[in-house]
Amino acid sequence: MAAAAPPPPPTPTPTPVSTVPLDSTPVGHPLFTRIRLAQPSDVPHIHKLIHQMAVFERLSHMCSATESSLSSTLFTSLPFQSFTIFVLEVCSQPFSDTPRYHDPIYPPNVQTLNLDLPIDDPEKEMFRSGDGDAVIAGFVLFFPNYSTFLGKPGFYVEDLFVRDCFRRKGLGRMLLSAVAKQAVKMEYGRVEWVVLDWNVNAIKFYEEMGAKILPEWRICRLTGEALQAYGNGL
Amino acid sequence: MAAAAPPPPPTPTPTPVSTVPLDSTPVGHPLFTRIRLAQPSDVPHIHKLIHQMAVFERLSHMCSATESSLSSTLFTSLPFQSFTIFVLEVCSQPFSDTPRYHDPIYPPNVQTLNLDLPIDDPEKEMFRSGDGDAVIAGFVLFFPNYSTFLGKPGFYVEDLFVRDCFRRKGLGRMLLSAVAKQAVKMEYGRVEWVVLDWNVNAIKFYEEMGAKILPEWRICRLTGEALQAYGNGL
Repeated sequence: MAAAAPPPPPTPTPTPVSTVPLDSTPVGHPLFTRIRLAQPSDVPHIHKLIHQMAVFERLSHMCSATESSLSSTLFTSLPFQSFTIFVLEVCSQPFSDTPRYHDPIYPPNVQTLNLDLPIDDPEKEMFRSGDGDAVIAGFVLFFPNYSTFLGKPGFYVEDLFVRDCFRRKGLGRMLLSAVAKQAVKMEYGRVEWVVLDWNVNAIKFYEEMGAKILPEWRICRLTGEALQAYGNGL
Repeated sequence: MAAAAPPPPPTPTPTPVSTVPLDSTPVGHPLFTRIRLAQPSDVPHIHKLIHQMAVFERLSHMCSATESSLSSTLFTSLPFQSFTIFVLEVCSQPFSDTPRYHDPIYPPNVQTLNLDLPIDDPEKEMFRSGDGDAVIAGFVLFFPNYSTFLGKPGFYVEDLFVRDCFRRKGLGRMLLSAVAKQAVKMEYGRVEWVVLDWNVNAIKFYEEMGAKILPEWRICRLTGEALQAYGNGL
């Protein structure tokens, strides 16, 4: 996949109206969120998320990633120097302090959302992550790219994915913002990703956030036997 | 720039027919080529090539790279681990052995072309590089990208440029092949780049070499004030 897919929701969807009786006090349902650097122990969850993304895109026949292939190719450099993954955890309780996530390069980013209704996560056992009912809700994988015209690096967002039951709550935007914020912090020049041309809602969403869609460029890909043949032909 | 630009020639163009008198022995003009890893001392040449590329693309108003910005952002990691540049040198004589180019990670790649006519390089003084009449004729800048579907890295070719007087001799293809060969050596899954959709000759060339053009994906770019605003809004 060479895409931030699926994109964040095209327009913010109101959270469902509470169905509590009119005479009772409306109850808010806080959703505590934490964005942190992925660690090697997250690979089984990341692997499942990648396969869900492939199914969502109806491209599961193209998805050959395994836990082993991910483990051997990720986490090979310092965060932000190469392939970097943020995972997004959510919990109905505040996150307890987790010393192993005290990364000086990227301390976990905690925010709280208030929802009218709690979220029913049918996969909570599969994506359980640490304390209480914390689960992994999504991830973003990105890495540095380079603009010769600017003479400086940027970030390319290869994939951004939020699990089905957590969509339309601004979590995708939160993950993308975390990458943009890191780019600004590092004085990088750009954040880039790709979108499918027929996904007009996503395009509208990206344009509203200030991104430019470059209409004329097409991706060229050399892979499989063609890559082998060309690479060996020198 | 987010492009391999300008592309290699769409179809091999015959080298000019020799104009030596019919009664003399045809004389071949060897062009010795060497592809090697760029070094910090190449930055002034690379900077000039980037600006020539910007002029060629009529985008020089977008090109703000300086020698200083290039020097401070390139050469920050081992070759192939991040931003990597191959420079292409050409010479009318065989290259002498240059110990400082004996990089164990990528020994220089030397090939010889036979041209019917010598090349008149109007910029030979500006691009002189070491021994004899050796000059820098072009470069390619690339870096690792990552496919979550494959669960492995690839290379993304950000820029590929060959100076005007050296075009249509297969040198662009030679640079691209060097990247593909390195990808195969490292067991990477893909080599990718972008092309302008109206550049039908380049698209035809890429397809003939076995590359697939992905018709539906569009690049999204967040930069400048929009990036600042979005990155600070978290």
